[in-house]
Order: sequence, then structure tokens, then C-alpha cells
Amino acid sequence: MTHGPPAPARRRGRPRGGASDARERILAAGASEFAEHGYDGATMRAIAERAGVDSALVHHYFGTKSELFAAAVDIPANPARLVPQALEGDPADAGARLVRLIVTTWDSPTFRPRGVALLRGVIGNRRTSSMLMGFISREVLHRIRERIGGDDAPRRAGLLASQVIGLIVARYVVELEPLASASVDDVVRDVGPTLQRYLTGDLDEASPGA
Amino acid sequence: MTHGPPAPARRRGRPRGGASDARERILAAGASEFAEHGYDGATMRAIAERAGVDSALVHHYFGTKSELFAAAVDIPANPARLVPQALEGDPADAGARLVRLIVTTWDSPTFRPRGVALLRGVIGNRRTSSMLMGFISREVLHRIRERIGGDDAPRRAGLLASQVIGLIVARYVVELEPLASASVDDVVRDVGPTLQRYLTGDLDEASPGA
Repeated sequence: MTHGPPAPARRRGRPRGGASDARERILAAGASEFAEHGYDGATMRAIAERAGVDSALVHHYFGTKSELFAAAVDIPANPARLVPQALEGDPADAGARLVRLIVTTWDSPTFRPRGVALLRGVIGNRRTSSMLMGFISREVLHRIRERIGGDDAPRRAGLLASQVIGLIVARYVVELEPLASASVDDVVRDVGPTLQRYLTGDLDEASPGA
Repeated sequence: MTHGPPAPARRRGRPRGGASDARERILAAGASEFAEHGYDGATMRAIAERAGVDSALVHHYFGTKSELFAAAVDIPANPARLVPQALEGDPADAGARLVRLIVTTWDSPTFRPRGVALLRGVIGNRRTSSMLMGFISREVLHRIRERIGGDDAPRRAGLLASQVIGLIVARYVVELEPLASASVDDVVRDVGPTLQRYLTGDLDEASPGA
């Protein structure tokens, strides 16, 4: 069932194996380096050395550390690229756009099982948890904080993360009904205003029902 | 450091061991029964039979199935008792009371490590997850739904659960800053209005910032 091209013949003086072999070794080196030094501590140079390739090849295959990390831990969609996209445009609708992005991504049958497996690992295991949180903190929350701006940006980003994490765990991991079966539009309508308040609302005003 | 009465001497015709031994056997029987049949499927009668004691003794030690479950899986505080208490009183402040209860309970140094361990197990393991969600659904969400009332009570309870789960995971499991170090009052101020909207707010109104 493999329809790819045959593996290229080895050449003298080159690393063992062909291009796909080098890519696999970079991925494996990345996984080890991130596990040992955390997301912030790992460098593209150290990963290249570990894989026995030139740094330029690591950048050629993966571009940024964030993309290499996403590939190494098998994140099926890179939030470092997607989340800032959702925050572009009118800030008054950013909460709804963000919920819609998250729910449509996680609803996808190709994303969901890998996302759930990753999340179970992150929450179930302290070491994985700390490595992935380093990535989320640097690549996702940092961009959200920059986008929000102002002194209370870290507080707002943390609150936003709390509702996003809870939505994902409730809908996809523990499959709490009726949330688990709600339509995308229903989730956007229900959870969008919460994210909007965390992003741009007056956090110190009394609750609407109080 | 044990100041309780000494274990009673064994009598012929009684189960092996004293009172504390029977209690331990009920706990072990409960843990197995819940694991095999889920929270809803397990009965006090089956647990008594499995432990080789009279049903009355199970009720004597643990009162309700919910209390036995909390003891068997080592939940350090029974949400089936605490959450309905927080929902008593003025509905306009219920969101704030609920956040305060959750944060003060989880902030406690005796509760927190056991709560985190339990949550890691629940989310990390499909079987534990399903058993505990049966309990949460029956004993906690059902009471919240009854308390909210109306046709949209299940939807409101699910949304409430999503923010509560996310708050707990972000603050206590992945320890996301600045949320992890925020004071109880700050968390109540920030997250209370979200729970209040889910409990009593107009879910279909546009977000405040839109």
C-alpha cells in the first residue's frame, strides 16, 4: 500500500539514508531535546547537532521551533499559527472567532482523536504537561497577550485559557452532554461572550445577573 | 497518634476483623463495583454482598452511595454535598459563591495534591474518566440542573462545568500564571460573572463587547 517513491540510494559522505530519513532523525532529536530541556531550553542548533545534520536543514524542513515542536509531539494543528489568525480583525468579535476556530478544529474527525490523546498525556503526566505548557505559554499565550495589550493582558490571557481548556476537556475528553453534541453555532453563541469578556470586556464590572 | 477506641476483640460467627476491617472491605468492594459497573450501575446491595456484610452496615458507615463513592475513590471533599450548599441563597450571587467554594477548597494544602492526582487520573484514563463522570453527572450536575430549573438547565449546567473544569485544570494542574497565584477574591471577581451568566444570565444576548 506504499505508493511513495522508492528510498533514494545512499551516497558516500552523506548522512545515512535519504531526505525522509534525515527528517525523521530531526523529529526524534527534537522530541528528545524538548523532553530534556523544555520548550524554551531547546535550541534548533542543539537539535541539529543531536540529529547529526546542519542547522540549515532543520530550518529547511520545519521553518520555526514552533513548527518543529508541533511536528515532534504530533500536534495535529499548530495553535501558534491558528490562534493569532483568529485574533486578527475586529476585536469586538474575536471571542466568537476564537471559539469557532477551536470547535471546528477539534470537531474534525482527523484532529479529534490525536488532540484528545495529546491532552490526556499532557494532563495525566507532569513531565509532558510542563513541556507542552512551555510551548503554549511561549507561542500561544504570549501572542494573545501581545494582541490584547495593556497591563492586564496576562490576567486576561490566563482567564481565556481557562475557559478554552475547560471547553475542550468537557466537550471532547469527558464528553459532557449536551455540550458534547451541541452545534458549532450553539457553542459559539454560548461560550463566545465569555471569551469576549476575558479579551476586551470590563472585568471589574458586576456580573450581568447580579 | 490514634486516639480512637481499640479494635474490638473478634467474636465467633462474625466476619474476620473488627469494625475498621469491615469498613475497609466495604471501601474495597465499592471501588471494584464502581469500576466494573460505573457509578449508576453499582448498588449498595451489591457492594454489601461483595464485602460480605449486611446492607445496613454499608449505610451505617457511608450513608449514601455518593458518600461511599467519594470515600472509595478518595475524593477529599464531596462535591455532591458542597456544590448544592453553594447554590442555596440569592441566585444573583450563586456564581460568585460557587467560584469561592471551588477555589478555597482546591487552595487547601490538604485537598490540592489529592484533587490534582484524582483529576490527572480522570482525564488521563478513559475508564476512570467514565466512572467519575457518571458520579459528577448524577450527583453534581443533576442537582445543579434541578436548582437552575427550566428547559435550558442541562445546557447551562454543561457550560458551568466547562468553566469550572478549565479553572481547576489551569490553576491547579498546569499552574498557568498569573491565574495560578491570583488571590481568591481576584478569581471570584474574574470568573464569578462567567458562572453567573451560565446560571442565570441571558445566554442569547450579544456579548458585552460586541
